Amino acid sequence: MKIKGFKSAAVKAGIKYENRLDLGLIYSEAPAVTAGIFTTNQVKAAPVMLDMERLLQGRAQAILVNSGNANACTGKQGMEAALSISKMLAEPLGIDEAMIQLASTGVIGEALNLKAFETSIPELVQDLSEDNFGQVAQAMMTTDTVAKLVHKTAAIGGKEINFVGMAKGSGMIMPNMATMLAFVLTDAQIGFPALHKSLVNANECTFNRITVDGDTSTNDMVLIMASGEAENSWIDDETIEEQEEFQHHLEIVLKELAMMIVADGEGASKAVTIRVCGAKEDRDALRIAREVANSKLVKTAFFGEDANWGRIMAVVGRAGVKIYPERIDIAFGDVLLVKNGVFAGKEAELAASRILKQPKFSVIIDLKDGVGCEEIYTCDLSVDYVKINADYRS
Amino acid sequence: MKIKGFKSAAVKAGIKYENRLDLGLIYSEAPAVTAGIFTTNQVKAAPVMLDMERLLQGRAQAILVNSGNANACTGKQGMEAALSISKMLAEPLGIDEAMIQLASTGVIGEALNLKAFETSIPELVQDLSEDNFGQVAQAMMTTDTVAKLVHKTAAIGGKEINFVGMAKGSGMIMPNMATMLAFVLTDAQIGFPALHKSLVNANECTFNRITVDGDTSTNDMVLIMASGEAENSWIDDETIEEQEEFQHHLEIVLKELAMMIVADGEGASKAVTIRVCGAKEDRDALRIAREVANSKLVKTAFFGEDANWGRIMAVVGRAGVKIYPERIDIAFGDVLLVKNGVFAGKEAELAASRILKQPKFSVIIDLKDGVGCEEIYTCDLSVDYVKINADYRS
Repeated sequence: MKIKGFKSAAVKAGIKYENRLDLGLIYSEAPAVTAGIFTTNQVKAAPVMLDMERLLQGRAQAILVNSGNANACTGKQGMEAALSISKMLAEPLGIDEAMIQLASTGVIGEALNLKAFETSIPELVQDLSEDNFGQVAQAMMTTDTVAKLVHKTAAIGGKEINFVGMAKGSGMIMPNMATMLAFVLTDAQIGFPALHKSLVNANECTFNRITVDGDTSTNDMVLIMASGEAENSWIDDETIEEQEEFQHHLEIVLKELAMMIVADGEGASKAVTIRVCGAKEDRDALRIAREVANSKLVKTAFFGEDANWGRIMAVVGRAGVKIYPERIDIAFGDVLLVKNGVFAGKEAELAASRILKQPKFSVIIDLKDGVGCEEIYTCDLSVDYVKINADYRS
Repeated sequence: MKIKGFKSAAVKAGIKYENRLDLGLIYSEAPAVTAGIFTTNQVKAAPVMLDMERLLQGRAQAILVNSGNANACTGKQGMEAALSISKMLAEPLGIDEAMIQLASTGVIGEALNLKAFETSIPELVQDLSEDNFGQVAQAMMTTDTVAKLVHKTAAIGGKEINFVGMAKGSGMIMPNMATMLAFVLTDAQIGFPALHKSLVNANECTFNRITVDGDTSTNDMVLIMASGEAENSWIDDETIEEQEEFQHHLEIVLKELAMMIVADGEGASKAVTIRVCGAKEDRDALRIAREVANSKLVKTAFFGEDANWGRIMAVVGRAGVKIYPERIDIAFGDVLLVKNGVFAGKEAELAASRILKQPKFSVIIDLKDGVGCEEIYTCDLSVDYVKINADYRS
């Protein structure tokens, strides 16, 4: 999997564990138009704060990502560490420090092992090659069980445009908080405002629609770099049609990564789509869908393959949106289990239980109060989730 | 345990399971001043709707409580069932139907087994005696592992006033949603407005401060009946001092029941107090305390006895309240683990881990931004919680 203008590499730096890929580098041969979205958590890791400041210029040339340590909640020391890593990398790459984006995931509150970076960065730069994205996707894994890498080709304005996306999911580093990182590379020629807008919009209906446990990390980020090597005519605010096409394809890439994250949620055995329709407003539908997707009772019932519509009704009733209980329909897949607020009977329950045995299914809630509709993608809450997250950090 | 003016009884009615106490009756020999608080869930069970309407009169003479079936989400049929049970009980008691309060907990969406009520109610009425409160507390249990019964005596205005309280916790009926029921009986002579106000205020800082899994049931209720048999001079809006004393003692009773519920949360192995202080406003402190207490990541760390302050910092940062990360202190018991947003070191972590091994401990978060302070009482999220709630309803 290659994409014009970009190289990458990953090494076993021994940041926390020996003998696993834990440091990855993505490098753009020329300054790339770059946009980013960062955690809304007020407690932000040092690399997040640094990246946000640097991205004001809308350009970057490298992303350095490490697992094993989140470089968060370490005070001034954390920012100093981030700055010295930038320096270590800027020199062998021969680029300005400000052109480097840093991403970290792992244990928080511990000082970064700077020695590991110092030893490994020269090797990392030497190993840069066109076909190493799979290794970078591996290097960013924490409790993820599979590397998440996506490739897509699209025709925009008569030119072939490529996308490569990689992500790590809400698995926690043995165990720390869920961190989601995603990087997308494209060879499209696109201006910063158009790129930023496309990313924000595409993110809203993909990564912002997934939830594993309702927690937001100090380190979450999504970055997109556009090299322009596809030599399409510039996409910008005046080429609305092309911008929308670009956004549409980007959305497909992000959605694919998002669904991989949900399916690989910690301890997850089922990927579940919660669709709420018939709401007064879209935002009401979203609020209810989110509450249902985050309810411990609903998620444990999914794990137990129990078509427990009563728990769903109860969450709908407490989500803070005006509803009419006597109108509500609830379906599992194509099985209508609740009709006008009343249980459809044992036969329907049996059929719904069969739906729940599938690794992937939908729950559809119709409020019959309007045309607002939204979806949230989530997973079940399993015994393994608790085990993974209860283990002492080690 | 006796209290003047009240009798009680419980029987094995076979509502869902054979051979366990599942139907309880509390009876006041004369109409008692009665106040109630009911679930805020918009999806309300039939008995809740009926009780709310009946309590407008501020008087009741009986509480009939059953486990095994919540009589919720069954449409018109549910209300018809509640009305016919009232009728069954009113006759042998020789009281008006409207003087009966009903409380149900258990599986939702299934029709009540009216036959079981019909057969058992005469026996129940016959068994009424002064010392059966413990059996009523047993009859309302679902996944609770212990019956919750409290007795308190206080001197108010020179008279001895008694309280008997009983509750069932957020264990779910094998498995349905968490339902909390609590009934308090007192022999105090107190007017309805004063009783209602005392209940609302005492409830706010006790039952409204506990959380097991953040879910609100369709059947939650707290009822208080005052027989007046203590023959104290009437407590009302004009005897502010006595009203406050009464409320204070009621608060102690409710707090005791609330802490019993948390300690007996489903699968819980630890009772944890989350105290947030130094907030700009009390409500900011409450919001953060609630988020921390409901975080799956924080609760699994409690279960794992992991002093994972990083997860707490991350929840504080996403709770929707403006905070200053660099000011925050976090302590486990008397061990300061985070000072001004920075980890206090391995030695402090070791000491905090010892605190976490206790069955009961506090986490204190100081935001250093004001004088707002609130507490929430919760428990850990264990492997057993998932197992209890994943098992198919059976």
